[in-house]
Amino acid sequence: MLIPTLKEAPSDAEIVSHQLMVRAGMVRKVAAGIYTLLPLGLRAIRRVERIVREEMDRAGAQELFMPTVIPAELWQTSGRWDAYGKELLRVKDRHNREFCLGPTHEEVITDLVGREVRSYRDLPLNLYQIQTKFRDEIRPRFGLMRGREFMMKDAYSFHATEEDAELEYKKMYDTYCRIFERCGLDFRPVEAETGNIGGSFSHEFMVLAETGEDAVVGCTKCTYGANVERAEAGYSHECDAGSSEKLDSIERVSTPGMKSVEEVSAFLKVSPHCLIKTLIYNSDMGVVAALVRGDYDLNEAKLLRELGAAWIELADEETVVKTTGAPSGFAGPVGLKCTIIADHSVKGIVNGVTGANEGDAHLINVNPNRDFTVKSFSDLRVVVDGDDCPRCDGNLSIRRGIEVGHVFKLGTKYSNSMGATFLDEEGKQQPMIMGCYGIGIGRTVAACIEQNHDENGIAWPLPMAPFQVTILPLTAREKEVTEEAERLYREITALGVDVLLDDRDERAGVKFNDAELLGTPIRIVIGKKGLKEGGVEIKGRTEQEAQLVPLEGVIDEVRGRLSPA
Amino acid sequence: MLIPTLKEAPSDAEIVSHQLMVRAGMVRKVAAGIYTLLPLGLRAIRRVERIVREEMDRAGAQELFMPTVIPAELWQTSGRWDAYGKELLRVKDRHNREFCLGPTHEEVITDLVGREVRSYRDLPLNLYQIQTKFRDEIRPRFGLMRGREFMMKDAYSFHATEEDAELEYKKMYDTYCRIFERCGLDFRPVEAETGNIGGSFSHEFMVLAETGEDAVVGCTKCTYGANVERAEAGYSHECDAGSSEKLDSIERVSTPGMKSVEEVSAFLKVSPHCLIKTLIYNSDMGVVAALVRGDYDLNEAKLLRELGAAWIELADEETVVKTTGAPSGFAGPVGLKCTIIADHSVKGIVNGVTGANEGDAHLINVNPNRDFTVKSFSDLRVVVDGDDCPRCDGNLSIRRGIEVGHVFKLGTKYSNSMGATFLDEEGKQQPMIMGCYGIGIGRTVAACIEQNHDENGIAWPLPMAPFQVTILPLTAREKEVTEEAERLYREITALGVDVLLDDRDERAGVKFNDAELLGTPIRIVIGKKGLKEGGVEIKGRTEQEAQLVPLEGVIDEVRGRLSPA
Repeated sequence: MLIPTLKEAPSDAEIVSHQLMVRAGMVRKVAAGIYTLLPLGLRAIRRVERIVREEMDRAGAQELFMPTVIPAELWQTSGRWDAYGKELLRVKDRHNREFCLGPTHEEVITDLVGREVRSYRDLPLNLYQIQTKFRDEIRPRFGLMRGREFMMKDAYSFHATEEDAELEYKKMYDTYCRIFERCGLDFRPVEAETGNIGGSFSHEFMVLAETGEDAVVGCTKCTYGANVERAEAGYSHECDAGSSEKLDSIERVSTPGMKSVEEVSAFLKVSPHCLIKTLIYNSDMGVVAALVRGDYDLNEAKLLRELGAAWIELADEETVVKTTGAPSGFAGPVGLKCTIIADHSVKGIVNGVTGANEGDAHLINVNPNRDFTVKSFSDLRVVVDGDDCPRCDGNLSIRRGIEVGHVFKLGTKYSNSMGATFLDEEGKQQPMIMGCYGIGIGRTVAACIEQNHDENGIAWPLPMAPFQVTILPLTAREKEVTEEAERLYREITALGVDVLLDDRDERAGVKFNDAELLGTPIRIVIGKKGLKEGGVEIKGRTEQEAQLVPLEGVIDEVRGRLSPA
Repeated sequence: MLIPTLKEAPSDAEIVSHQLMVRAGMVRKVAAGIYTLLPLGLRAIRRVERIVREEMDRAGAQELFMPTVIPAELWQTSGRWDAYGKELLRVKDRHNREFCLGPTHEEVITDLVGREVRSYRDLPLNLYQIQTKFRDEIRPRFGLMRGREFMMKDAYSFHATEEDAELEYKKMYDTYCRIFERCGLDFRPVEAETGNIGGSFSHEFMVLAETGEDAVVGCTKCTYGANVERAEAGYSHECDAGSSEKLDSIERVSTPGMKSVEEVSAFLKVSPHCLIKTLIYNSDMGVVAALVRGDYDLNEAKLLRELGAAWIELADEETVVKTTGAPSGFAGPVGLKCTIIADHSVKGIVNGVTGANEGDAHLINVNPNRDFTVKSFSDLRVVVDGDDCPRCDGNLSIRRGIEVGHVFKLGTKYSNSMGATFLDEEGKQQPMIMGCYGIGIGRTVAACIEQNHDENGIAWPLPMAPFQVTILPLTAREKEVTEEAERLYREITALGVDVLLDDRDERAGVKFNDAELLGTPIRIVIGKKGLKEGGVEIKGRTEQEAQLVPLEGVIDEVRGRLSPA
């Protein structure tokens, strides 16, 4: 078997899953972000594929297979030909017709279903495929984690009613939970931003791992989870006004060159949570000032949603000067003429500090409602570890995670642009309501390794292991050892188990190291000495000590480890 | 289930498999030569995939997965970047680097194995993948038969010795036979031309069907088979010289404007098999004249091989005039100054007719050896139906076929150009000997339909059928009928059989027509009347009459039909 293991990872492998997949002979790079899956890598991919397929079929989805090369017309119809940017790899055929390599298939599937389905009686439909996609990432990295050509399961559902679309969304949510559970992964579904696509729900499925790219917010007490963009800060009563502290008179103080929260709080010797940070934004709804307590960060996604705006962006210097009369760094809500909205955290500030709307000056003893009024108080900030849970009396903790799946209620964005309509019960033409549901297959494998490894290599959970059992004869030169190894290989294989027999004529140390690196869950070591005593050594990949098992008990021991009671 | 059947095939569907796959809701066109496989089409593809995978694994090949998007450098190294022509779809990424969409993967796999394998101890290796490929055919047509994006199994083997490469070739040949047998196809492996690639063996696997694009030559008595380019004409003793006929004196006759065999034989009132056709060729070895009996056609592949030339082409008028002294149509071997080689069929001609090497004139009573000498007599002609078999005393028949597989001994073409070497037992660097082995998965499905259909639709052989059983309740409105249908559906599904239950509220006629169109091997019809008599009707797709089967015997009947004793 072609498993070219390496002692060293290539220098471009920055994260542990990438390093281990190369070292364990699972993948080889062909070009930036483009990999060949070697036999061991493909086996891991197929494990996920199989679980995904079984659960999607069980949920009533139907598998089909769309092309990789997609005509430009479909993307022009949806409007994404121009909007998608350079990640869309475009290509002209020999007749100079334009195509792209599919990075996702909303266009193809919506066109198909729009043509083939005419009546509400043919709905709902959930169609999926497992296929390689291509996204021309500007900086592909992390191996299979952020490749350009990658394996994905993408599903699209079509519905006659919102209710039905929501039921399917729930079903897919449950299906995804089952899929990642069956994979043996520690994961968390989290509420996610829908962005501007217009859908009302979206959840991401995050595999928890210290090395994860994304922050995952979760309650330590209830099931609440969200990505950090989306996570709500629990409404804390300390925010409420009505403190018994005495409100002092507002004063202007000179703060030459002090712009940041750190600078101002150090200079004035006040805690950052006494500061009212004032951020000036441009948006399609005009200029707005957003206030947040000095020790918190503003969450732009929340601001966008609160405003109901199509876009926002931090104002340029010119706008800041025009709006506040001061260079940036000295903005404050007092006397400000634009719309002001504030995070809940600002409400409870007593005798706070803000910019004075003039250069090199701040105001102290500023009090909300007395010194300025805001259009609204709402949740505008980025949550921090220990925040109150928005759903229960628990606390939020922030962990790292890797997004491996995404479910999305799309609504009618594509069915409208691509004319995918049906006749409802009254014979009226209606756009289909859509959902889409993706799982990164290669990414799931990489995330699994991020979550399950140690300094010696991968430590596969059973359901995702390329092989469940490794048989390691200590020598390839003693007939009784190799014969026993081959006998066990045949017997365990006959149980329907995938067994890797390391019959190489290598030193035992090399074999042990490779076995740890490859991370097979169950390792059976066969040596001359053990055989004399009538047994072999069995060790789980994450166990410290091997266990001596008599020959006649090996099959039962393996069976027991494969399906623990 | 999304099975959008159609009464009419689209106008661009020229062949029956394309028409039926569209009508049966198996595929839909996305662009020229690019299709979406709908659930039913994908099921048929998966049947073939599974058989292919099982047999490749059984033969010791290892599955991997190479990328679709391949960097230009690999193709430049092999020399095919320039040589491949416009079928190679080229694309530039966002950084303006050149790539192509893989039409085949010799470059990627040879590069990989060249890097990873260093010693004869790691050989042999046989690596395969099942993947979509892209070839930018100038005129894609016939649906999945000649698409641009298509599903293929491609395998590549690497060996230390010629003998080992030949053993693997034989093993793959046997594996392919088993694959197509298991698919339930009537096929024939045939010897094929290797062209200029330098390999010594090549076989094509042809599915026999009247509508096939290729002519397949096979012996009616032994196993000899070849494609028409390659097929040898049996050496017939009638070709031997030494006829008892009297040799007459050569004579020049006027044949004004008579150039073709038909014209000359009609004008002179002699049978075409008395004519010696003289064809003038240019080649890298100079000008040659090739002779063949007037009723036969010259096979250029054979001429190329006989000459040992790198290329040949029919001479232009200028060369013909210069060589023969006459315009084309009047060439003959008598007095000709260039190399002359002849087909065996010429040897036995007595008092034949040839061109006179002057305009508007022929010679009669021309006799080989007496009037001209040839460098060699050999097999240069295209075989015809009824020819002697070159291997036994049987006769050749010519049938039509569709190429679905190809095995090829590649030799060192790619390992040389891409530097894929290994150290042999003596520590000497050697190029690996390679073989390659392809199966068109989509093409196999299409070919299966070409071979198995009637005027009502597809008639799947059991192993390739998307569903093995269709249950057809005559009505969707009678509770006892639908309940019985669902009960049978559950029971037969529990046997591990794929069952399609047509529970649509459609007229029975519509359901019957669709069932015939879809071509499921076993059809079970459930009606109120039958149920009253305690039975259902079971019919094989190719049977004329349905059979009344009592309810309690249905499972046994189905089981028996699925695995006939």
